[in-house]
Amino acid sequence: MKLTSPIQDFLEELYTQCKPETGGQVATYIPELAKADPNWFGLCIATASGAVYEVGDTRQEFTIQSISKPFVYGLALEDNGRDTTLDRVGVEPTGDAFNSISLDPGTGRPRNPMINAGAIATAGLIAGKSPAARFRRILETFSLYAGRELALDETVYRSESETGHRNRAIGHMLRNFDKLTSDPGPTTDLYFKQCSISVNCRDLGIMAATLANRGVNPLTGKQALRGEYVESVLSVMGTCGMYDYAGEWLYNVGIPAKSGVAGGVMAVLPGQIGIGVFSPRLDAHGNSVRGIRICEELSRKLELHLFNRAATGKSTIRLQFSGADFNSCHVRGAAEGQELRALAKAIQVYQLQGHLTFVTTEPVLRDVLEQAPGLRYFILDLKRVFSLNESAGHLLNSLVEKLAANRRTVIFTHCQHLPLLRRMMKKKLGARFEQIFATFPDNDLALEWCEEQLLENTRHAHAAHYKSKPTDYELLQALSESELKIIQPLLQPRKFKAGQKIIRAGDEAREMFFLARGMVSVYLRDEETHRLATFSPGMAFGEMAFLDGAPRSANILADTEVECDLLAMDDFTALGKQHPAIKIKILEKLCLNLTGKLRKANRELSLFQ
Amino acid sequence: MKLTSPIQDFLEELYTQCKPETGGQVATYIPELAKADPNWFGLCIATASGAVYEVGDTRQEFTIQSISKPFVYGLALEDNGRDTTLDRVGVEPTGDAFNSISLDPGTGRPRNPMINAGAIATAGLIAGKSPAARFRRILETFSLYAGRELALDETVYRSESETGHRNRAIGHMLRNFDKLTSDPGPTTDLYFKQCSISVNCRDLGIMAATLANRGVNPLTGKQALRGEYVESVLSVMGTCGMYDYAGEWLYNVGIPAKSGVAGGVMAVLPGQIGIGVFSPRLDAHGNSVRGIRICEELSRKLELHLFNRAATGKSTIRLQFSGADFNSCHVRGAAEGQELRALAKAIQVYQLQGHLTFVTTEPVLRDVLEQAPGLRYFILDLKRVFSLNESAGHLLNSLVEKLAANRRTVIFTHCQHLPLLRRMMKKKLGARFEQIFATFPDNDLALEWCEEQLLENTRHAHAAHYKSKPTDYELLQALSESELKIIQPLLQPRKFKAGQKIIRAGDEAREMFFLARGMVSVYLRDEETHRLATFSPGMAFGEMAFLDGAPRSANILADTEVECDLLAMDDFTALGKQHPAIKIKILEKLCLNLTGKLRKANRELSLFQ
Repeated sequence: MKLTSPIQDFLEELYTQCKPETGGQVATYIPELAKADPNWFGLCIATASGAVYEVGDTRQEFTIQSISKPFVYGLALEDNGRDTTLDRVGVEPTGDAFNSISLDPGTGRPRNPMINAGAIATAGLIAGKSPAARFRRILETFSLYAGRELALDETVYRSESETGHRNRAIGHMLRNFDKLTSDPGPTTDLYFKQCSISVNCRDLGIMAATLANRGVNPLTGKQALRGEYVESVLSVMGTCGMYDYAGEWLYNVGIPAKSGVAGGVMAVLPGQIGIGVFSPRLDAHGNSVRGIRICEELSRKLELHLFNRAATGKSTIRLQFSGADFNSCHVRGAAEGQELRALAKAIQVYQLQGHLTFVTTEPVLRDVLEQAPGLRYFILDLKRVFSLNESAGHLLNSLVEKLAANRRTVIFTHCQHLPLLRRMMKKKLGARFEQIFATFPDNDLALEWCEEQLLENTRHAHAAHYKSKPTDYELLQALSESELKIIQPLLQPRKFKAGQKIIRAGDEAREMFFLARGMVSVYLRDEETHRLATFSPGMAFGEMAFLDGAPRSANILADTEVECDLLAMDDFTALGKQHPAIKIKILEKLCLNLTGKLRKANRELSLFQ
Repeated sequence: MKLTSPIQDFLEELYTQCKPETGGQVATYIPELAKADPNWFGLCIATASGAVYEVGDTRQEFTIQSISKPFVYGLALEDNGRDTTLDRVGVEPTGDAFNSISLDPGTGRPRNPMINAGAIATAGLIAGKSPAARFRRILETFSLYAGRELALDETVYRSESETGHRNRAIGHMLRNFDKLTSDPGPTTDLYFKQCSISVNCRDLGIMAATLANRGVNPLTGKQALRGEYVESVLSVMGTCGMYDYAGEWLYNVGIPAKSGVAGGVMAVLPGQIGIGVFSPRLDAHGNSVRGIRICEELSRKLELHLFNRAATGKSTIRLQFSGADFNSCHVRGAAEGQELRALAKAIQVYQLQGHLTFVTTEPVLRDVLEQAPGLRYFILDLKRVFSLNESAGHLLNSLVEKLAANRRTVIFTHCQHLPLLRRMMKKKLGARFEQIFATFPDNDLALEWCEEQLLENTRHAHAAHYKSKPTDYELLQALSESELKIIQPLLQPRKFKAGQKIIRAGDEAREMFFLARGMVSVYLRDEETHRLATFSPGMAFGEMAFLDGAPRSANILADTEVECDLLAMDDFTALGKQHPAIKIKILEKLCLNLTGKLRKANRELSLFQ
């Protein structure tokens, strides 16, 4: 069974609706373009997260023409920066047609990079030792956007070159105003070549999605344009991309777009989606008739208008809870556990999600600052944060500093995938970096660290050095003195070095342990990857498999030097026969202990519902 | 301890940096404006989720002037719809100054609603029986945006009215072209009044945030503009709001904005933030010098450019898990439990989050469709979905239909706050609505329903009619026949009617129960608000409090007619003395049972980490 997506169904329906639209004419200004089949029609949408949907002639090749302009503009920005580029080419829309010369009467600066004059000036900004090298860079860049090797259509290029007198004239005008700094011939030729690169409709969709995804091709993961320049490229597409009706386009469609005379249209909704359409019949403005129609329909039916946005801020805090409601998996003795129930209210955990920007980080700051007077530790879990920009980094940095100055600690967890955070903190905090920037790989270790800090003051002796006696063992606490005397000979003392494995997953369970000194931890897998629990003196461990006869389900390792007492299953069974009252008391304690743990787990589970 | 927010600190620093900027001149074209103190300077940012930050003279009143234009345009759209409005006023930017007449030479249509001619034509579109009624509607609308009662500044209004000859001329020109359909006098007067409404800088920030929040004031929750028209208002601000440099503004600042000659500037980043600045010194374009500077700095430092966006799609699926990894809280007997472990793999739960739009819903569809061949039930939990637009509704609708046609079921949970979903489904599905649109208030009930469906076929008899014997009781299963004979006289049979309370929270726990026939459920509070567990015949209940001697922590109610066997604590204690081997066997089973539940709870907890 293979189900087609309703999105595919929708696009096919839209395609069928728009196919009868046969208005407009195939471009004829160069002979090669006139050879296009006017019925060709393809549609592709690609999301910024990498899903691609195609209908119709999406693999038919055609030349990119003016759709090359925003991509070359992006490369010019990378090569020269914004100031130099703006000095050569403006960013104002013009009411004139696509091939108008439109130079500023005073400075000779082309009005914007989407008209031919501006595009030729932009081509003049592409770095490279030779004309061939400059074109190679353009072709490589376009290929990164498309995620496949693109090539020049030699026939179209020759046709453009032979008939491009108007563009050659523009080249010379630009040279006259020093907007080209060398012989205009090779640059005009480079412009003809960039326009003659062969693409298909699917490529357009993916190239658009690459711009939507801050310059990173969502299928290959490769960067085609530095993220900081994406906004500039989309801005000129937004105001100048569809020639002489920028206002109406933004009003009706609200998606930055660019068209080409071979019939391509590319539209980019930042952060969301790329659209490619191909249909060679053009309207009087030189835009594909079906291309315009498809963009209008998609915008309306899929509610894609740039300015149609729900509020984003409040979704950053996925969940928050107190350290009193959810402990680390360090299992505490009764006294310490009770103490912690009060103290751990000073810990607050925030699970954050999405992209951290100024606006999405603001509610986190607000909440933390409101709670700061009554709390001591803030754990910010970044596991489900996809990205963090500098602006969010600055806010977090200020928060850390401000709270540190007020004896509050902010701890970040799960932030290995956000190296910018660490870099920014290091730069900002300087010498104080090590003191006040705290990170842990996961929440559990962070919680435990906070708990230990809170318990520190009131603890009578450090757990690792404190030795429990059998009378302190939780499971034996209901026994009378005489009963303890009976069980004591059954307890076999054992010592383990720090790091030694006490219980191995998969082994048969023939004993349970009472911890006398030190700490032990339970790990799910072979290495110390995911800690399930830590025990302190007085607690029993290994009792679950001991009871249900299943093989050991986890490894238990000594965290420190450990002394413990072992109770063998055979001895426990024999105890039941000779001194059933003792066994009953132990089992009852065990039931109680399990009941307590189960109640706690259920309480914690309810946090996540 | 009250900590100031780093955001407040940042804004104060920015304010101090921009304060020495004293370029520009206070407007003098009407005498009243010339009275402004040129040093006034206020800054306010308000987020779409309702946080407000202010610095400087944010409570100083001034007249709104041209910033009234987008708000009145929004009201005109509500009153007349897009087509009529577009017929009277265009949406194309013009290179001309704010007070130019700029009518289309052919049709006499003003180029856009942000120039005076367009704004006067827009004022002519406001509905109302009298001039006073029309102004009252404008004032009420502005007050909804600001979240407080605004008022007319009579002095400025009179000054405007006395000197507004140019605007009166425009009124007559519009009448000449039938872009005003009645005497232009009252409409020009209405325009003078709308410009003379008194606001402060904080109002501007909140009015901007209202536009950012799809027309809903984030502080009062009241709708000032229907959501569907927000994109149109922001579009004309985006291309025409800052007079004759739309391209450069979008390129450098990238936030739709509008300025007024009294020194106000308002900028709106859709879905995110509103900015209000007030400083009366204007540049040659008529824009506040500090206002422009602040917007540029905020855009750059806070990375607010409209086109600077990370990919949003992939964050919709908060969590997903199989019904095999997380069961309903219906506790099953061993055989049924084992059966369900295999069957429940056919259930998949998706926790969705954020705003459901085409782009954010697409990954959900893709995932569900990929998994559909191997699965049977899909539970979409919408608890953390804030909103759903029509486009997302259509996709979900198609998904439901497609899966129903392939014998798969989609169930929605926690969707009471999204009435649009239900309405759309009802409209689309018609008669099939009841059959294929399934919703449950929470995941647990949805899971249980799916589990019951899956178990239906293989179940030998319906739980409610099936009667367990003591030999079937889980906790007694290790007992020999002779041991069973000893315990049987201690079991006291009890019957309960459907709905009857078997255990009351807070009561002393003096017995445990074995369920012989029917079903019982555990509820945390008095009424059937949150179900903690359901038990089938053969299971014990009430054993936890029985063991730990705590008062009953929950209510247990009979779901159906119920028969059960009661075991009193005193009898159980006596049993330990007379037949310790039996008590040991029961306690061991209980430990095992608790161990199993604890292992399950820990597995489930790990899903959420």
